[in-house]
Amino acid sequence: MSIRENMVNIMDNKNRKISAPVIKRLPKYYCLLDELSMTGVERISSKELAARMGSTASQIRQDLNCFGGFGQQGYGYSVNGLMNEIGNILSVKSVYNAVLIGAGNLASAVAFHLEYLGRGLRVIGVFDNVPRNIGKNINGISARPMDEIEEFCSKNHVDAAILCVPKTIAAEAAERLCSAGIRNFWNFSRYDILLKHDDVIVEDLSLSESLMVLCYKISESKDKKSP
Amino acid sequence: MSIRENMVNIMDNKNRKISAPVIKRLPKYYCLLDELSMTGVERISSKELAARMGSTASQIRQDLNCFGGFGQQGYGYSVNGLMNEIGNILSVKSVYNAVLIGAGNLASAVAFHLEYLGRGLRVIGVFDNVPRNIGKNINGISARPMDEIEEFCSKNHVDAAILCVPKTIAAEAAERLCSAGIRNFWNFSRYDILLKHDDVIVEDLSLSESLMVLCYKISESKDKKSP
Repeated sequence: MSIRENMVNIMDNKNRKISAPVIKRLPKYYCLLDELSMTGVERISSKELAARMGSTASQIRQDLNCFGGFGQQGYGYSVNGLMNEIGNILSVKSVYNAVLIGAGNLASAVAFHLEYLGRGLRVIGVFDNVPRNIGKNINGISARPMDEIEEFCSKNHVDAAILCVPKTIAAEAAERLCSAGIRNFWNFSRYDILLKHDDVIVEDLSLSESLMVLCYKISESKDKKSP
Repeated sequence: MSIRENMVNIMDNKNRKISAPVIKRLPKYYCLLDELSMTGVERISSKELAARMGSTASQIRQDLNCFGGFGQQGYGYSVNGLMNEIGNILSVKSVYNAVLIGAGNLASAVAFHLEYLGRGLRVIGVFDNVPRNIGKNINGISARPMDEIEEFCSKNHVDAAILCVPKTIAAEAAERLCSAGIRNFWNFSRYDILLKHDDVIVEDLSLSESLMVLCYKISESKDKKSP
């Protein structure tokens, strides 16, 4: 594919919807390319990429062709070029203001992780409804009582909320946040926000579901060993 | 489908490999059915199930037919029957012994979550290489220095390891754990264990990747609002 054809493809892509399964894989590509770039690798073949992604070369080519290719037959992919393009698609450089709901261990871990990354979400307020957590210092921010959430959201520009509380508290918090106009959620709780609100954006990260997949894989491998 | 045909299908299934994407969805089905069961719901249609899963009725029927159906045209699915079957496939009742690598906030949150669930993995030892974390109490278990991991694994039956440490420490820990014979990993770090070990079972849970998906969805929705 010529550079010109490639450019047309990329431009076409600005308006093209990339399928959800591909979007789910893009962050993994991005992290992998970031790592390769840091270790000085300049080009990578679809075969090598496939090995690192736990996928097939044909799947890789299919995924990457979705947004313009970047591969040159026999030369592989440009690590930085591909990483930048995926970074643009994912808007990795954007930073949105977020309130963190919860001031426990998981909330602390998430806040620390965001501070370390320095992108994606920036925690500007921490809220909890457990009395002993009020005033707790979470990465330099003092946790406030949940009752102050509406006032905080009206006075500050809040793009998103991170739910790091148990299900019942998450349910109440989600209602209050939706009423306060918050439309984007990073949800670590088991509460299903979309159940009552189908007009919000939710990314669920479920420890329970991930654990079940692991245990399935373990039990399957044990079955194989003892038929 | 008659009960007899259904039984044959289920039996057939014991030996049939369920595809990875379906396996990934089963925990979500399980959690949803568990919730429905707790609120007293006895039957559910594929249409209702689809609405709750954020899927289509045809996808639901396709997924569930993979392992024997359980649906009766016009009557929907038996919530408990389906939940039990999915639970069996996922081996949700199994409990494997695990060592927890890390004694920080994320490790504490994961240990607490496992204690609350009471299934999947049971933490029997906690290890860290940060001096101030040694001796720290993680859900009743005192954190030991990483240097004791080999001895601990040789004296105890350890099925799995949970990596809750930064990438570089995770890389070293994974090497030591693999050498000590551990073959199952729940990986919260950004270290790619499969890179050096293709004979182990790994379930990655990446905060970074999940965050990137959320930010993509947010930026996409902002683009729609301001064309």
